[in-house]
Amino acid sequence: MSAQADRAERFRALHRARHLFVLPNAWDVASARVLEDAGFSAVATSSAGVMVSLGFPDGEAIPRTEYVDAVRRIAAKLTVPLSADVVAGFGETPRATAATVRAVVRAGAVGINLEDVDPRTDRLVPLERQLAKLRAARDAADDLGVPLVLNARTDALTTGPSEPEARWREAVRRGRAFLDAGADCVYPMRLVDRAAIARYVREVPGPVNVMIRPGLPTLATLERLGVRRVSFGPAASYAALGLLRRVGREVLGERSFRSLVRDALTFAELNRLAEPRGGPGRSRR
Amino acid sequence: MSAQADRAERFRALHRARHLFVLPNAWDVASARVLEDAGFSAVATSSAGVMVSLGFPDGEAIPRTEYVDAVRRIAAKLTVPLSADVVAGFGETPRATAATVRAVVRAGAVGINLEDVDPRTDRLVPLERQLAKLRAARDAADDLGVPLVLNARTDALTTGPSEPEARWREAVRRGRAFLDAGADCVYPMRLVDRAAIARYVREVPGPVNVMIRPGLPTLATLERLGVRRVSFGPAASYAALGLLRRVGREVLGERSFRSLVRDALTFAELNRLAEPRGGPGRSRR
Repeated sequence: MSAQADRAERFRALHRARHLFVLPNAWDVASARVLEDAGFSAVATSSAGVMVSLGFPDGEAIPRTEYVDAVRRIAAKLTVPLSADVVAGFGETPRATAATVRAVVRAGAVGINLEDVDPRTDRLVPLERQLAKLRAARDAADDLGVPLVLNARTDALTTGPSEPEARWREAVRRGRAFLDAGADCVYPMRLVDRAAIARYVREVPGPVNVMIRPGLPTLATLERLGVRRVSFGPAASYAALGLLRRVGREVLGERSFRSLVRDALTFAELNRLAEPRGGPGRSRR
Repeated sequence: MSAQADRAERFRALHRARHLFVLPNAWDVASARVLEDAGFSAVATSSAGVMVSLGFPDGEAIPRTEYVDAVRRIAAKLTVPLSADVVAGFGETPRATAATVRAVVRAGAVGINLEDVDPRTDRLVPLERQLAKLRAARDAADDLGVPLVLNARTDALTTGPSEPEARWREAVRRGRAFLDAGADCVYPMRLVDRAAIARYVREVPGPVNVMIRPGLPTLATLERLGVRRVSFGPAASYAALGLLRRVGREVLGERSFRSLVRDALTFAELNRLAEPRGGPGRSRR
């Protein structure tokens, strides 16, 4: 098996273990490497984090090649598996999804997030079409010999039918259908409430991903509820930029730079993040 | 006068005011925009911050075009002046410096940092050659109609003669010569100690830049000492990545994500950083 296929299987295995695992999302090489060094078993891209870092709003406004270049830069410096958030596949068609998956897999990713809301219309993609996109993603990666880890996101809880119980049923229906179509994990966006998380895990028979946000139960509770994977989403960007906002207020308001130097990396530590973990000799390919 | 020339003059005026000003260095569009929103009058790139973000160590290992692309992305979204750290000019010759300056000015920068250590050898560039590089930078920007703000960095205090007083004399000699050659500001690297800062400001008759680092006197003290400009250097990257390191320890060690959600931006706040301040209609060009 190729090294990349092996990384994909290592990543998949995390979803099948008994314990919850946390998947931190990065916005660039430095943030990905510092999270790897912290000890996480895998790293993902945050689409919003990467895109805003490069001057584009979240969605599919960024040219696909520019986003894939960012994935490639990150993958080239990681030794742990990298999952790429590919939004809705960069296009409406299963064919576009397949092209995007080929590009991110060639760039070094071993997992993707694929969401079921069309960023052009902010409406749910019809289920049959979304299943075709998921199958196209799987086939495209299989053709490259990489058993891609598919995290299938549904926005049914935010963008689905207006009646709450109908919305819930749609989110569950989609989660089940995604698993049947070969997804490795289901990611219902905006699942925050403890009771709702417990219910979703009961009703959808496969690994469930939730995103860290204020109000989410503790990791220990999430594990008890049966959640398998907890991702940062764009939270690393929210936090890092929130720190810079605080620094700005301190410097300009109080003429103090204490938050800028507290717990900070050194120059040598920053510079080492441009190398793979273990030093420049430790190439992943 | 073009809008870019006007921004250059606004930036220059900050160096001629009576008060110290703080110039924060960013590593990408999001960090630059959040610092602009915090109220800083100008923003700079940190070479180390930008380069490690893109997977390159600090120095001139990154292709010039890739670095200039990062400058262009940031400049396109800022309404305040942007200064670009161009290391030693991306090459040994004044000609290379001129090409680099043309590229970053065309990318939207109105100021540069130019240092006098050769990143290939870690030795000081001979003074006459460095003066030729500074003049080449000035001429290249003048040819484009932009009165570039030149911040001339000297590494004489770290890389100069081994005898401390000789090193000091070299740093002062270079600072004075840089000003005579048309630099707007002098930046002696590793000037941290209060007495040394006071002495340097007395001995070099022009605006002096110091970098924030642990142990630096307070901003109020620096202003009393006559320092005109205080830059972040790579400190924003050190701090943001230091926060992620702490987040990693908390999540993996204590199973808590408190530092990830404290003082954080929201999704809407992050996404707005991809637009110029004032909204998408507010283009700078």
